[in-house]
Amino acid sequence: MARTIALLTDFGTTDIYVSVMKGVMHGISPDIQIIDISHSIEPQNIKQAAFSLLNAYQYFPVGTIFVVVVDPGVGSQRRAVAVQSGGYVFVAPDNGVLSYVLADLHDDMQAVELNNSAYHLAVVSRTFHGRDVFAPVAAHMAVGVRLDELGDRVEKLVEFAGLPMTIEGSLARGEVAHIDQFGNVVTTIGYLDWVGNNDVRLSPRFGEWVPVRIAADDLVVTANGQFVTGLHRTYSDVQPGALLATIGSGGFLELSVNQGHCAHHLDVHMGDRIEMVFKGGTYAAIRD
Amino acid sequence: MARTIALLTDFGTTDIYVSVMKGVMHGISPDIQIIDISHSIEPQNIKQAAFSLLNAYQYFPVGTIFVVVVDPGVGSQRRAVAVQSGGYVFVAPDNGVLSYVLADLHDDMQAVELNNSAYHLAVVSRTFHGRDVFAPVAAHMAVGVRLDELGDRVEKLVEFAGLPMTIEGSLARGEVAHIDQFGNVVTTIGYLDWVGNNDVRLSPRFGEWVPVRIAADDLVVTANGQFVTGLHRTYSDVQPGALLATIGSGGFLELSVNQGHCAHHLDVHMGDRIEMVFKGGTYAAIRD
Amino acid sequence: MARTIALLTDFGTTDIYVSVMKGVMHGISPDIQIIDISHSIEPQNIKQAAFSLLNAYQYFPVGTIFVVVVDPGVGSQRRAVAVQSGGYVFVAPDNGVLSYVLADLHDDMQAVELNNSAYHLAVVSRTFHGRDVFAPVAAHMAVGVRLDELGDRVEKLVEFAGLPMTIEGSLARGEVAHIDQFGNVVTTIGYLDWVGNNDVRLSPRFGEWVPVRIAADDLVVTANGQFVTGLHRTYSDVQPGALLATIGSGGFLELSVNQGHCAHHLDVHMGDRIEMVFKGGTYAAIRD
Repeated sequence: MARTIALLTDFGTTDIYVSVMKGVMHGISPDIQIIDISHSIEPQNIKQAAFSLLNAYQYFPVGTIFVVVVDPGVGSQRRAVAVQSGGYVFVAPDNGVLSYVLADLHDDMQAVELNNSAYHLAVVSRTFHGRDVFAPVAAHMAVGVRLDELGDRVEKLVEFAGLPMTIEGSLARGEVAHIDQFGNVVTTIGYLDWVGNNDVRLSPRFGEWVPVRIAADDLVVTANGQFVTGLHRTYSDVQPGALLATIGSGGFLELSVNQGHCAHHLDVHMGDRIEMVFKGGTYAAIRD
Repeated sequence: MARTIALLTDFGTTDIYVSVMKGVMHGISPDIQIIDISHSIEPQNIKQAAFSLLNAYQYFPVGTIFVVVVDPGVGSQRRAVAVQSGGYVFVAPDNGVLSYVLADLHDDMQAVELNNSAYHLAVVSRTFHGRDVFAPVAAHMAVGVRLDELGDRVEKLVEFAGLPMTIEGSLARGEVAHIDQFGNVVTTIGYLDWVGNNDVRLSPRFGEWVPVRIAADDLVVTANGQFVTGLHRTYSDVQPGALLATIGSGGFLELSVNQGHCAHHLDVHMGDRIEMVFKGGTYAAIRD
Repeated sequence: MARTIALLTDFGTTDIYVSVMKGVMHGISPDIQIIDISHSIEPQNIKQAAFSLLNAYQYFPVGTIFVVVVDPGVGSQRRAVAVQSGGYVFVAPDNGVLSYVLADLHDDMQAVELNNSAYHLAVVSRTFHGRDVFAPVAAHMAVGVRLDELGDRVEKLVEFAGLPMTIEGSLARGEVAHIDQFGNVVTTIGYLDWVGNNDVRLSPRFGEWVPVRIAADDLVVTANGQFVTGLHRTYSDVQPGALLATIGSGGFLELSVNQGHCAHHLDVHMGDRIEMVFKGGTYAAIRD
């Protein structure tokens, strides 16, 4: 049984690009299982891809090989890498797209540059390494090729700073990371967890802050000059058409309209600033 | 060999939601085969999902497990259920989305509420039961878990009234159920069958009407104040650009423009009323 | 192990059409592997489908069964065919959609008309042969049915003229074949290959021309009255926002904007004329 390969790209699905990657992989390993995470990352939006990968990867079985191709530097001197961490494998350009997931795994990682052309297509174009490098490397790994065989060891990858999120006193600041197809506004303010029914624990793994604990009632979120008060568990806790804040299914603060389109309602867009003020609870935003 | 799982949701394919459902299923059953029916149901449009499922299910092999997640009540008191009927399994929120397919199967059905958390993810969110409940339940069934193990028996499901379609004398009334990507206008007026070359049998299984038989020439369809006369077998029976009525591939009355976009041409939309008048034939719309 | 089946249609993915084709195939061969090439061909655009197939097929393993359904004549007298060439199988309506790939293979081909109804669904509609004819035929072939069993031998298929591309002296003329989701403008001017670092070989297999060899610097491309000079290897060879011409990953001349949308920038559309003038090199456009 070959390992599962999961694909995340900005290639869209109207063109043939994703399919030829799959054709290449099937040629190497006919019984491979391939799952599409999404191909609708905004063209060349590395941070959106990094955030999507962060939210998706933990729901895939250990052993999954993730192929992440958002690659504005294709054909230039940017490196192509394969990285092992936490039992997963990530194959991607070395442009920071793995930053969030590797920080989340905060595990040892081994990385190699994909410079052994034995595992690439015979002819490598300058504009489509998804097909010519990343797909064949992933398929070879799926059938047993080891990381060390793919190229030379790399000690340090290109990294972003953590997710754009800060906490100062009773104020958390983040931004809009994603707007989903329902219009839910997913923010970078996490990692949030319910503690019992009325308290929320805020435990940002990317920064240097200790957990805080706040009452669900004592929150005010500001987005584009508008206020959303309190934190609810699900959409139908409010009337159809009403605004609410929730902890989204990925653990990040989300703004929604029950049965409506929140992003249109608030007129917010990706990258817009979001603020969350704690008005009660025992928050304690102290450096680690 | 695991059973085939077929997915129908309103999640779209731009977000990661569908993929994490697949990741969860692969973690439970690595050799599972998953087919996407569609993820483009209008957000929260339960009736469109019910109609799509009705048109699709019979082309899947007996034993297929359908996961249908159009779920405006997620996280509320609405039940989650698994239903066996006609050799198929359906896993869905109990909100009526299975009404049309269960009426079509008019078979014994067994249903359970999904209240055995042993077959859910360890942490169940309030906003994404597709990932946390429906996906793992379907994957467990694919590898052999029995319906009875999933939760308590349910006797009665939430049901819609039948498809919006009535026949009175020589007049059939329905509405636009779906507009496909070619612009074909699919109506709720069915079940239609060709009888020989020139006669049509109308046998609505949802209502209480006996079959009627009408001549293909003796039909007039009215949509948004415009008339389409006669019934043709295929698009190229008329000139490019011309309007026609057909019996669509799902057995429902369809309006089309040969090599054109009928919905734009007629300016009709989902839910618009459609009328069909029989001017001849031996129609006999009599209560059963 | 069943053979891989690859699907190329104009059905979109919002409707259930593609999924019921897959359901039918799974009913015949439960362990079949199906890859979507694209379902976003413009409705009834046979030439766009032919060009997409040409660019995709060679990346799939030998033995792959391609199902190509762009079929404005469905239900009419147009033939349905299966064709073997170069180790591949193509199942499609006989409307020219296989012209480019068969010319590219320039191999012996065997073709049959799909008139043995034993390999179709029991009921064949007039409007959806993808589900009723092409899908079951492909699945039966995937599990071992031979071409000869599918119907009567056909000697000659419907064919297009070659790709719209001509060379006269130092002037190559073609047109826009495809605009991808990044806005890259893919033209019909090919087959282009790099020879060393600075020379390009132009070897149109569809026409009657011998190879020419030109210096990368000595090219001027004209599109919608605007000029693009020189030929670059990859997007990042120019500044973000700058225009460039490349040899695309399929071997065809492509116009791009680094990190931008070239088709919007130049205001060009599918079918628009493209000219390429060689100002140096040893071009020699002589009839074979």
